[in-house]
Amino acid sequence: MSLLSSITGPRDLDALSIDQLEQLADEVRGFLVENVSRTGGHLGPNLGVVELTIALHRVFDSPHDPIVFDTGHQSYVHKLLTGRQDFTGLRTRGGLAGYPQRSESPHDVVESSHASSSLSWADGVSRALTRTGRKDRHVVAVVGDGALTGGMTWEALNNISDDNDRNLVIVVNDNGRSYAPTIGGMARYLNRVRTADSYRTLHRGSDTLFRRFGPAGRAMYRGIRGGTHGFLSRFTNNAALYSNLDIKYLGPVDGHDLATLLETLELAKSYGAPVIVHAITEKGRGYAPALEDEADQFHAVGKIDPVTGESLGGSGGKAWTDVFADELVTVGEERSDVIAMTAAMLRPTGLLPFAQRFPDRVYDVGIAEQHAVASAAGLAFGGLHPVVAIYATFMNRAFDQVLMDVALHKAGVTFVLDRAGVTGPDGPSHHGIWDLAMLQIVPHIRIAVPRDEARLREELREAVAVDDAPTVIRFPKGGVSAEIPTLERLADGVDVLVRSDTPDVLLVGIGPMAHVAVEVADRLRAQGIGATVVDPRWVVPVQPSIVELAASHRLVITIEDGIRVGGIGTRVRQVLREAGVDTAVDELGVPDEFIDHASREQILEDAGLTASKIAHDVVAQVLGTRIPVARGAQTTEIPVIPTFSRDDRG
Amino acid sequence: MSLLSSITGPRDLDALSIDQLEQLADEVRGFLVENVSRTGGHLGPNLGVVELTIALHRVFDSPHDPIVFDTGHQSYVHKLLTGRQDFTGLRTRGGLAGYPQRSESPHDVVESSHASSSLSWADGVSRALTRTGRKDRHVVAVVGDGALTGGMTWEALNNISDDNDRNLVIVVNDNGRSYAPTIGGMARYLNRVRTADSYRTLHRGSDTLFRRFGPAGRAMYRGIRGGTHGFLSRFTNNAALYSNLDIKYLGPVDGHDLATLLETLELAKSYGAPVIVHAITEKGRGYAPALEDEADQFHAVGKIDPVTGESLGGSGGKAWTDVFADELVTVGEERSDVIAMTAAMLRPTGLLPFAQRFPDRVYDVGIAEQHAVASAAGLAFGGLHPVVAIYATFMNRAFDQVLMDVALHKAGVTFVLDRAGVTGPDGPSHHGIWDLAMLQIVPHIRIAVPRDEARLREELREAVAVDDAPTVIRFPKGGVSAEIPTLERLADGVDVLVRSDTPDVLLVGIGPMAHVAVEVADRLRAQGIGATVVDPRWVVPVQPSIVELAASHRLVITIEDGIRVGGIGTRVRQVLREAGVDTAVDELGVPDEFIDHASREQILEDAGLTASKIAHDVVAQVLGTRIPVARGAQTTEIPVIPTFSRDDRG
Repeated sequence: MSLLSSITGPRDLDALSIDQLEQLADEVRGFLVENVSRTGGHLGPNLGVVELTIALHRVFDSPHDPIVFDTGHQSYVHKLLTGRQDFTGLRTRGGLAGYPQRSESPHDVVESSHASSSLSWADGVSRALTRTGRKDRHVVAVVGDGALTGGMTWEALNNISDDNDRNLVIVVNDNGRSYAPTIGGMARYLNRVRTADSYRTLHRGSDTLFRRFGPAGRAMYRGIRGGTHGFLSRFTNNAALYSNLDIKYLGPVDGHDLATLLETLELAKSYGAPVIVHAITEKGRGYAPALEDEADQFHAVGKIDPVTGESLGGSGGKAWTDVFADELVTVGEERSDVIAMTAAMLRPTGLLPFAQRFPDRVYDVGIAEQHAVASAAGLAFGGLHPVVAIYATFMNRAFDQVLMDVALHKAGVTFVLDRAGVTGPDGPSHHGIWDLAMLQIVPHIRIAVPRDEARLREELREAVAVDDAPTVIRFPKGGVSAEIPTLERLADGVDVLVRSDTPDVLLVGIGPMAHVAVEVADRLRAQGIGATVVDPRWVVPVQPSIVELAASHRLVITIEDGIRVGGIGTRVRQVLREAGVDTAVDELGVPDEFIDHASREQILEDAGLTASKIAHDVVAQVLGTRIPVARGAQTTEIPVIPTFSRDDRG
Repeated sequence: MSLLSSITGPRDLDALSIDQLEQLADEVRGFLVENVSRTGGHLGPNLGVVELTIALHRVFDSPHDPIVFDTGHQSYVHKLLTGRQDFTGLRTRGGLAGYPQRSESPHDVVESSHASSSLSWADGVSRALTRTGRKDRHVVAVVGDGALTGGMTWEALNNISDDNDRNLVIVVNDNGRSYAPTIGGMARYLNRVRTADSYRTLHRGSDTLFRRFGPAGRAMYRGIRGGTHGFLSRFTNNAALYSNLDIKYLGPVDGHDLATLLETLELAKSYGAPVIVHAITEKGRGYAPALEDEADQFHAVGKIDPVTGESLGGSGGKAWTDVFADELVTVGEERSDVIAMTAAMLRPTGLLPFAQRFPDRVYDVGIAEQHAVASAAGLAFGGLHPVVAIYATFMNRAFDQVLMDVALHKAGVTFVLDRAGVTGPDGPSHHGIWDLAMLQIVPHIRIAVPRDEARLREELREAVAVDDAPTVIRFPKGGVSAEIPTLERLADGVDVLVRSDTPDVLLVGIGPMAHVAVEVADRLRAQGIGATVVDPRWVVPVQPSIVELAASHRLVITIEDGIRVGGIGTRVRQVLREAGVDTAVDELGVPDEFIDHASREQILEDAGLTASKIAHDVVAQVLGTRIPVARGAQTTEIPVIPTFSRDDRG
């Protein structure tokens, strides 16, 4: 029986010796490589925190002491130590989530995978515990150096330093990388600390050591409540970055040296006030293929060969990201004013080819979406056209900046939202399902949703041609959809994809959902119901020809993979009503809910966004109703057609 | 002729001696007190930056050198020096805006009054200027110490330090206050610098002075391009807070000493890379009534007696804020788990009475809305119920945290949004018109909009009783609306305010717009049209009785003072359609535009949100149409009633 399989909860760690804990760390690494290579998942980050997580669970008593993981993709080891060792279904429906999830375990606190929030959570939780007479409980936040580039952490540290009456331990998991190497002055600072010779040298602890560092060191020593004799790393006073915020600092320590970690965390635990522990770790630790991958050290992988690390995925057709990446380079060749921006995700958002071609025309701002967007407005003021490439879900972080910095100031900035719509295995905080509803309320914004490769290319070009308003191009994760040829492009740019002699139903397919719309039309035709299918291309503002077509149809069905509430369908209906067109609109979209991890297909099917379900419902409405349909004011006759109401659905 | 009236633009400053500039400063102060006391406006902040603004315009050449004011309420002096000296209509339609506004002057760059964005703008503009061969132009950001508590500034500084190839000067206008004293570790740090004896001591500059401070000092001296002889303040090396970000620092300097300011800014100008100038200023400088006001030193005033500083406003009925303030104290008495939070606006948001009664139960987090919301989720996890009081427009800063930290984690957090809807004189970035549309897309959120004092009190209590979802109470600026008695409270809490025997039109009045709805009903009755008026109280989720009532009426009119796009009316329509009720809905609201400063009444009238306009339109529709109206599926008869379409309106 392995040590790992004997661990049913954190307290099982208490009986293990340092040697056994080191053996456990080896077993955990073996487990991670074996299992994640089968399922895919976040490999590099978890290999980097094996010893750190073991030490945390040995020293602190989760869930009595809540442990908050920033971003959460590094919580696999935590799962293994808290009774979750069946990784076979990782990130699939019914299997473990790829992030902490409260429904899995009381050891999980924060589920959101949006970076830089852990210190705020820890601030709130620790204040609450202290206020309610539970100061004996410690709150631990584990935050990466990358996440520290996010402004929320500054806001949180400013507050944490304001209130010393709580047990709060901030563990900085410093691997010098967010996805890629961390950027900015803060990263350079950490790098100086990290590469200093001193930190690997281990010393015996003594009060002398602390006294060397003046009042702060003496205060630190006074914080030692006995019991922390012996082995201590050298505590250099590298606290300058945060020292002026009055937060005590321990480190840096070798994040793979279990004995040192245990000593340091015990010291932090006994301090009685907020303290930072700076642990230097290595992403991909112990797994050669990850260490050799300079790009992101196997940050997240698909299925791989566990020995070689080579991808076992199919050849994998061209992804949406690749098309964008390629077209942006072409645009960059033609227009020297176009520059690219990313919030710490150069490669995942497809900016790498652009960066290679134009190394001085790309800005990686760190995990700092607010700054990315506001500084983009400044770049536009200065005569450039920034293309800000970002995951759709992280756009939520910068709504105010899109509204107040870009739109109010009539700045020509193009936002390219990758992983838009239902993404799948990463769960609720990675779905890009709020972007359309959130962004459509920004005055003068223009939003395009490409249905295929050709549209992505042309819509990107149309977007960067706008110089007085924000433009948005959003597309999903994964392989680009098959091309749907344009039957006719209307004057306002709307593409007609399917025409019918009997215009019963107008299907408005938003982006990739145009494929579903075309299939619905086929199914309806088989039932004798005529359907027109359009791809609006630019979904905001609603184009005039959508209004005209709606007026000549009996029912409008809009299909989008964002939330139905406040989405594009709702906007279409509003514009129709404004124009006096009372054709009924069924807006189909994702429900107004947080959606757990599952495949994109499963989620879309649950949401009823499949051709068979949509066609079935339309047929049921058309054949099953007897009440006159609502019609626009332009129509003078009362048509003998049915009402299409959702409550008639089967 | 005064010196001030001879200044038609910044270059007119060039000919003035130091003595004359000091005289000008006196004149500017006199002008500000005289004029702002007549119109109301931001007095304290502008009195604090008189010398600083004069010095900036003397040393830099706006608009060739763009000057970005953070938050912008301290731009009055800037306006006076850039050809705008008619303050008679300040903050009223046709008069000067209270913030920078590009349409007024090419000297204005950033209009948004949302704090902490200036460094991001300056980063973007300076990068663009350098990239496009205009590195000779300097970019200046003027940022308060309060704004530095916002995380965006951390994100920006991290980036600014990454790229030294530009002329970027960051002037920290440090008065120790945002609205009230600035909070947090950063503020304590600045305070230590500010109160150090050294900073007021002035020295002759010499290279020796700089050499004392090691490599950074020598680098600084090398940055002096001659011409900066003479009078220099003592440059202590108080750069620790940001020094690890590799941004050079000059200061602190006395922000009211013109000679010192000029020397220091010249030095900064000649440095050739990003540099921080730390200027210590006094809010309300030179005006005794402001200096004696401990609360906020006349941050923003109404009409006042210029000599005594006493308010000349009417007795002023009870404000919405006062009602909330009062009720929250009562709630606090009953429930020890209720705590209050503010983002640097304790008094403006009405938390002062609560803070006085329960000094240890209120958290001021600084200008840090993201942290406020995420840490509130942590507080809720720890068993407390936070009430986060914030201006509606600043809620935009924390959309992601409401969604991902509060709602996803089922945290019971109550958001109290003051200054919601059309606010008026503060212009586009202060209107709270996006909150409803933005927040209604958050799953499980509950939003209440009180129509009068009694409803605000009871809805606040209902809100804090919810422990598993975010709740929102939002109300406008100004005096609380007159009470409208409830005719009948329906089972789901919807209040019927007016009943009619002939249910033609259902008027749904959102919060204070219920008053307009009642008046519309009166006018319709006079025309023989029956109207029911309801106040839904909780507008999200849409209550069942709204759906039932809509089904029995011929037209639904929703009236809200937020944007029409994606607002509550849209949500009502969506829910009706989902329920199979096809009664036409006209959702009335604010247009999808940025709205300039004017009175609330003027803006609502422009938007058509007056009883006379709404009643006129409804009458025109009812009397002027001939087409059958859309009806719900429940109705089996085809009623002989008109269509209500917007395009029939006069």
